[in-house]
Amino acid sequence: MHPQPNSVGIVTPQTAHFDTPIALKSGATLDSYDLVYETYGTLNADKSNAILVCHALSGHHHVAGFHSEQEKRPGWWDNMIGPGKPVDTESFFVIGLNNLGGCHGSTGPSSPDPKTGKPYGKTFPFVTVEDWVETQVRLADRLGIEAFAVVMGGSLGGMQALSWTILHPQRVRHALVIASAPGLTAQNIAFNDVARQAILTDPDFHGGDFYAHGVVPRRGLRLARMLGHITYLSDDVMGEKFGRILKNDVFQFGYGVEFEVESYLRYQGDKFADSFDANTYLLMTKALDYFDPTHHHRVGLSAAMSPAQADFLVISFTSDWRFAPGRSREIVKALLDNDRRVSYAEITAAHGHDAFLMPDPHYHALVSAYMKNAAKGLGI
Amino acid sequence: MHPQPNSVGIVTPQTAHFDTPIALKSGATLDSYDLVYETYGTLNADKSNAILVCHALSGHHHVAGFHSEQEKRPGWWDNMIGPGKPVDTESFFVIGLNNLGGCHGSTGPSSPDPKTGKPYGKTFPFVTVEDWVETQVRLADRLGIEAFAVVMGGSLGGMQALSWTILHPQRVRHALVIASAPGLTAQNIAFNDVARQAILTDPDFHGGDFYAHGVVPRRGLRLARMLGHITYLSDDVMGEKFGRILKNDVFQFGYGVEFEVESYLRYQGDKFADSFDANTYLLMTKALDYFDPTHHHRVGLSAAMSPAQADFLVISFTSDWRFAPGRSREIVKALLDNDRRVSYAEITAAHGHDAFLMPDPHYHALVSAYMKNAAKGLGI
Repeated sequence: MHPQPNSVGIVTPQTAHFDTPIALKSGATLDSYDLVYETYGTLNADKSNAILVCHALSGHHHVAGFHSEQEKRPGWWDNMIGPGKPVDTESFFVIGLNNLGGCHGSTGPSSPDPKTGKPYGKTFPFVTVEDWVETQVRLADRLGIEAFAVVMGGSLGGMQALSWTILHPQRVRHALVIASAPGLTAQNIAFNDVARQAILTDPDFHGGDFYAHGVVPRRGLRLARMLGHITYLSDDVMGEKFGRILKNDVFQFGYGVEFEVESYLRYQGDKFADSFDANTYLLMTKALDYFDPTHHHRVGLSAAMSPAQADFLVISFTSDWRFAPGRSREIVKALLDNDRRVSYAEITAAHGHDAFLMPDPHYHALVSAYMKNAAKGLGI
Repeated sequence: MHPQPNSVGIVTPQTAHFDTPIALKSGATLDSYDLVYETYGTLNADKSNAILVCHALSGHHHVAGFHSEQEKRPGWWDNMIGPGKPVDTESFFVIGLNNLGGCHGSTGPSSPDPKTGKPYGKTFPFVTVEDWVETQVRLADRLGIEAFAVVMGGSLGGMQALSWTILHPQRVRHALVIASAPGLTAQNIAFNDVARQAILTDPDFHGGDFYAHGVVPRRGLRLARMLGHITYLSDDVMGEKFGRILKNDVFQFGYGVEFEVESYLRYQGDKFADSFDANTYLLMTKALDYFDPTHHHRVGLSAAMSPAQADFLVISFTSDWRFAPGRSREIVKALLDNDRRVSYAEITAAHGHDAFLMPDPHYHALVSAYMKNAAKGLGI
């Protein structure tokens, strides 16, 4: 057992293979695919204690615990999920998966296309939030889970939770929609497009078939990540953390690192460029852009949310300018218009969009209380 | 005369050549250089009615009027400057210049180095706001202007106005500091660094010597401009202008233009990449980063501003998140700490940072009133 207290300990990812073709929103069909996932806690006898954790842009199935004794950092939401933690694995059975199109084990553009044996690359179809929900439904079916106690996620993960409640109202008891939005603003889309253009115009992208050329579009991915990082943090927290602190004592008059903030951003960009698939990044940003429950039926958000039956906890963070609290309030209003039960909290937090990943005591106490109540209501 | 009413009409740029070497803040020396400039109105007998307009990141000397009958768009601040306009050329003599390091006629990285006959490229020295002020002082000397009635500018231009009041307090009667800041925040620097990295890592940049290769780093410049544009506009105005409007009626599931905002940004990026020098862009962003009156003497802003003798009009715009009103208030506080006369206005405007270029009636009325008063006080 890993020495970390309150940890789910060592976990081993599993792979579910699906060979029933899936018709995607784009019109394309994928004949078969794998989803990699992890589980924490124990599924109870009537399978009523399952939680689905949906990931954001660069997330994956490794949500909590460690893959080995040697692994230094636990899963990406380990502070939220574990025995005695806000999402308590003593009561709940938690599933984290890597979404279709990802690059952490689920079938995606870097996976071999069974027809050719070569990576899908640019032939991998576009995926939407709604498509992900359908693949998640199939995973639930595979595990015998008729209804989730909770579907939850932050950011793009929150959009999936929202989509679940619309598409499969009978299969979600509670939805936790954190630091999310009912759709991107023009500014959000604009930032995504700059990131995409950075990748698409990198000569090493090769129209998405860079695998065959033995290169990766590092420059583009690096820029995309640097830009993304700025939007994840608040102006204030960047000011507190870096301010105008110089790497050296005096100005260098060169294009090396002058300010600490440059050092941080370039490091984040480099790290990401070494590990993330460029085609997946493109797909994920497009899934964000496309998400809009009002789009298909050309109705307002209240009408779009009308099928939802779940109870909701909606959380936003004051300094989040990527998905500002006002966006969460749009969701809350739409739910109240439909007489849904909604708890809403706007957490005072300095960390911007990234706050949803931080162990803020107020935030965690709130989720904890909601989850305890939910467990009670569900007789868990 | 151009048919446009209240226009300064057809103007012809002039070039001033300087061959007294200038020692720059970076430690480098430039032996000689040209500054291109334009003037509007008439310099009065005692040369007391001169105004210097300092430009921002991508600006230049063509501030008002037209270069020819055929030119479709007037200078970049034509709505502000002309007969009967807020900066009234019936009373004032207005000078616009292209800063050293620019790419619109003043000596810069794309100019031939007299020693080699080839473009300076990466050997062109770094320039700072303080360096620009020194070159502007020399231009004033050349024109026999002992003191400016007004030094004014928006954004980076406002930083130059601020710097004038510190470095040459006896040579500035009034400073108009609009949509500016006493120094960049970590977030501002971070955005600049992403833009720079886009250019620096473009394979067509060739370490700054792309001229010799017959190419320009279009991809990098285009990304830099797209990103810049997002920060010039407010989230709200982007929402109003573009929202989630699609170029076509349905999702295309491709990487072409999906949303109108993408079309707009890519167009802006392409246009800029075709016309602006990449090395100049790098230099200008570095000048922004370096600007910090408190840096050299390690003092607070109030102490740094203590030499200033001018009267000030400081203006900010509510929706400007690049240089937010709070940044202008820092300047105002520092000036008040020094018992300077300061008028401050926070203009309610939707257009974000770009608002300083827009003909907002309240904004223009305010500048107009301030300028009339200034003229009166100066006996013009």
